[in-house]
Amino acid sequence: MQIAKTITEIRACVSQARAAGKTVGFVPTMGALHVGHVSLIKAAAERCDFVVVSIFVNPTQFGPGEDFEKYPRPLDKDLAICEESGVDAVFAPSPAEMYPRQNLTWVTVEKVSEPLCGRFRPGHFRGVATVCAKLFNVVGPNAAFFGQKDAQQVAVIQRMVADLNMPLEIVVCPTVREPDGLATSSRNQYLSPQERKDATVIYRALQRSAELIREGKAAAAEITRYMGEVLRQVPALRIEYVSIVDAESLDDLRRVEGKVLVAVAARLGSTRLIDNIVVDATAK
Amino acid sequence: MQIAKTITEIRACVSQARAAGKTVGFVPTMGALHVGHVSLIKAAAERCDFVVVSIFVNPTQFGPGEDFEKYPRPLDKDLAICEESGVDAVFAPSPAEMYPRQNLTWVTVEKVSEPLCGRFRPGHFRGVATVCAKLFNVVGPNAAFFGQKDAQQVAVIQRMVADLNMPLEIVVCPTVREPDGLATSSRNQYLSPQERKDATVIYRALQRSAELIREGKAAAAEITRYMGEVLRQVPALRIEYVSIVDAESLDDLRRVEGKVLVAVAARLGSTRLIDNIVVDATAK
Repeated sequence: MQIAKTITEIRACVSQARAAGKTVGFVPTMGALHVGHVSLIKAAAERCDFVVVSIFVNPTQFGPGEDFEKYPRPLDKDLAICEESGVDAVFAPSPAEMYPRQNLTWVTVEKVSEPLCGRFRPGHFRGVATVCAKLFNVVGPNAAFFGQKDAQQVAVIQRMVADLNMPLEIVVCPTVREPDGLATSSRNQYLSPQERKDATVIYRALQRSAELIREGKAAAAEITRYMGEVLRQVPALRIEYVSIVDAESLDDLRRVEGKVLVAVAARLGSTRLIDNIVVDATAK
Repeated sequence: MQIAKTITEIRACVSQARAAGKTVGFVPTMGALHVGHVSLIKAAAERCDFVVVSIFVNPTQFGPGEDFEKYPRPLDKDLAICEESGVDAVFAPSPAEMYPRQNLTWVTVEKVSEPLCGRFRPGHFRGVATVCAKLFNVVGPNAAFFGQKDAQQVAVIQRMVADLNMPLEIVVCPTVREPDGLATSSRNQYLSPQERKDATVIYRALQRSAELIREGKAAAAEITRYMGEVLRQVPALRIEYVSIVDAESLDDLRRVEGKVLVAVAARLGSTRLIDNIVVDATAK
């Protein structure tokens, strides 16, 4: 496995693979790798000949007061996971390598960035879109792999790639869950044992929404009210939003129709957790 | 010469050239080609094996009340000029090919977009940066060629390419002038015979600034005042700005130092004209 710290180095790795006729799959991460990331790596290895993983905690997607400083950075462990998972090259740049001067250029995706987490993390998706544009330009992959767990991130990136005609495919992989349903996340390690137990209520609420939709309930407000009842079984949980939106445009829905995204964001202590499911309301 | 109307077609042309081991030079234009554009094509042909010219009047860089509708579109003449100049492929997409749905994704370059023309054409450089990002992603060139005449456009694109790590080189070519000094521009054809004569005052004012800097004048306000005296010899000229800025950052300068950009924008009748020179104030 090659480890590149600079843009020049990773471009050389990829050029060599390209010259050997290989297709390139790319998994952009912020490190603190878990089984969710490994599933993305496996998906990339299945579809592409050469797999690149980036490990970069991107400062421009963290707001003031968010967990940029505290975000875990277990690089040696991450490299071992990459090695075991059959990654061909890791790109692990420093902040100065990615942002050598004041960054003046931003990629913004209107509308899709605005609801859900966009309301609680102003500037977050601008940072995500910008760093993904940069990483795509650095690595030049045929396909990039993202987890459905970050549903709004996926929608933003897909729209960016389509609007800007970026020459790569975005592959979305299913959310990986712990046996008790909690979506795997690098931030789960922040949770105390009690919070870790409490956190499972989020997926229970999402499952409840799927049941209700299967039973024919179509009023979004009614479904989210029932979800609220489930979530309030954990008094420590501070709900940011419980929303039902169109799965592609992320437009708010009053009635559940077609492919819908049911999404929750909530805090347990200082940890912010998000999760979602996509339900096809036409296929009952 | 190949003529591609769709993204699929131009990508196929470029892929074929790449497969033959050729480097790709790209000249993005809005058509209405003149000797300035031809000089860009020649520069591209000198440095690259395969030259692509795009002809696309980009709606997103025109403001309300600007000349988008009236902008000249002499496609047959443009294709003849490309053919004569040895262009290998022309990409001439429709607006619907470039913007198949509402465009939600924008590339903005802070600071560099804001002074000079940015104050008079809000949103213009956002449209320019966005369409250039799209075209670069569609064509995938090794180098793209721009004229120094559009100095702020050049500065915006250079900063975008650097900040977003776009894998291409930006080559800036000298402004081509008519024998009487007027910078060649597709908009010159809007000028009446009298306006065409009057328009030469802009370059005379720029030359005056270069003389003053060579003579050792360093106070920007003094130099622009002398330029104003020259420009006011044509009462019909409505000055938008006369500015002296840092040639790279476009930051306003009080004292002329290092490489400076002296830039003028003015209107004659309904025609907006811009011109500039770069003067190295250290090399007297």
